[in-house]
Amino acid sequence: MNAITTIGTIHGVGLGPGAQDLLSVRADRLVRGARHVAYFRKAGRPGQARRIVEGMLRTDVIEIPMEYPVTTEIPVTDPRYNQCLSAFYADCTARLATLALGGADVVVLCEGDPFFYGSFMHLHSRLSGIAPVAVVPGISGMAGAWTASGAPISWGDDVLTVLMATMAEEELTRRIRDTDALVVMKIGRNLAKLRRAVIAAGRAESAWLVEHAAMPDQRVSRLVEADRVTPYFSILLIHGQGRRP
Amino acid sequence: MNAITTIGTIHGVGLGPGAQDLLSVRADRLVRGARHVAYFRKAGRPGQARRIVEGMLRTDVIEIPMEYPVTTEIPVTDPRYNQCLSAFYADCTARLATLALGGADVVVLCEGDPFFYGSFMHLHSRLSGIAPVAVVPGISGMAGAWTASGAPISWGDDVLTVLMATMAEEELTRRIRDTDALVVMKIGRNLAKLRRAVIAAGRAESAWLVEHAAMPDQRVSRLVEADRVTPYFSILLIHGQGRRP
Repeated sequence: MNAITTIGTIHGVGLGPGAQDLLSVRADRLVRGARHVAYFRKAGRPGQARRIVEGMLRTDVIEIPMEYPVTTEIPVTDPRYNQCLSAFYADCTARLATLALGGADVVVLCEGDPFFYGSFMHLHSRLSGIAPVAVVPGISGMAGAWTASGAPISWGDDVLTVLMATMAEEELTRRIRDTDALVVMKIGRNLAKLRRAVIAAGRAESAWLVEHAAMPDQRVSRLVEADRVTPYFSILLIHGQGRRP
Repeated sequence: MNAITTIGTIHGVGLGPGAQDLLSVRADRLVRGARHVAYFRKAGRPGQARRIVEGMLRTDVIEIPMEYPVTTEIPVTDPRYNQCLSAFYADCTARLATLALGGADVVVLCEGDPFFYGSFMHLHSRLSGIAPVAVVPGISGMAGAWTASGAPISWGDDVLTVLMATMAEEELTRRIRDTDALVVMKIGRNLAKLRRAVIAAGRAESAWLVEHAAMPDQRVSRLVEADRVTPYFSILLIHGQGRRP
């Protein structure tokens, strides 16, 4: 080699729950300064991560949309689901690694926090040993939700449990019964099952649904009154009632 | 009344895990612009929240330190503990409410996220109906910890449990056995008990201690190798191993 190329860094940047001014100062600087910006989205959709940073990107930015090959068309339990996503993440990893090895820094936009149930983790694990990766934590979507609810999620020595509504109904019920404070994500088409589980656990009166937290169309409603929810962006909360002097 | 006074707002502002550039843009603006800044601290100590914003405050800032009358001198189980803290929080509330009703905005500095196991919640509940309160969510200390660990805390449909190490040993063990991913806070003098619980639950090999996450003296070590930890600022993590295509 005649020229020495400095290897670029791939930044997994947490954007927080949805409002631009809830990006961290570090994330804000990285996003505004980035020449290469990558993000996941459904095919043909703008993508929530990209929507959050609308108006913040450089005019000469190079955008790298990474479009999921599958979301709900194949059941998660079908082996083809994993195969399909695995090939997709390998391909995304190769694209970003090529940029980094060519000397470019890349900012990967991540809703919420990159290391908390995010898609970026699937790139992070594959990039290990290939290109430098830096992670900027973010305000989680659940923190956006409990802030929207206007009440603390946990006090004193409360136990907080975070569950996905994809879980089997009996297991959901058992765990909802066994916790002080609760956060449930990935609700979408699991709302009816989740409601039955919350009722069976005797917690229906204290359960809240938060939709689009920290965004202009934010909505907080009691679970017992919710007849439909916006898929994906809904979070269920039960606030802890722990020690409060 | 001859003059109309605009009532001020009391802002509970999440500062995140400890680095100044991990404040949100909204928090950064509020902290830098504030004339009145309040924060909790132990008597005679600078206080972690105040330390985070060192160098960011206005030169004409009016600081309102709120010093805990008790921390570990009285056991939490003693009724005097609650009485003592309750009177303290009532007093703090009165001080801040007087400022707000006199027209001043007040920024209350909160480590991490104000609604996640924070002291600000005890003011928030007392200020309801007295003065306007606004809450700015922050990056939690636990997000700082798992970012420092260099690995995602939760994947796919993992269950995440957040516990306080103050809990009884058998209950700790049961809950550590019953979760995929784990965060334990308030470790301090409970380290020996927590270690026994993690070992009894069969998770010792995968447990990590993070001290001073996102701060210059950040340290990540395996629980089995930790002989002492910094009280209060330590977080124990067990990373989930959920679905990863």
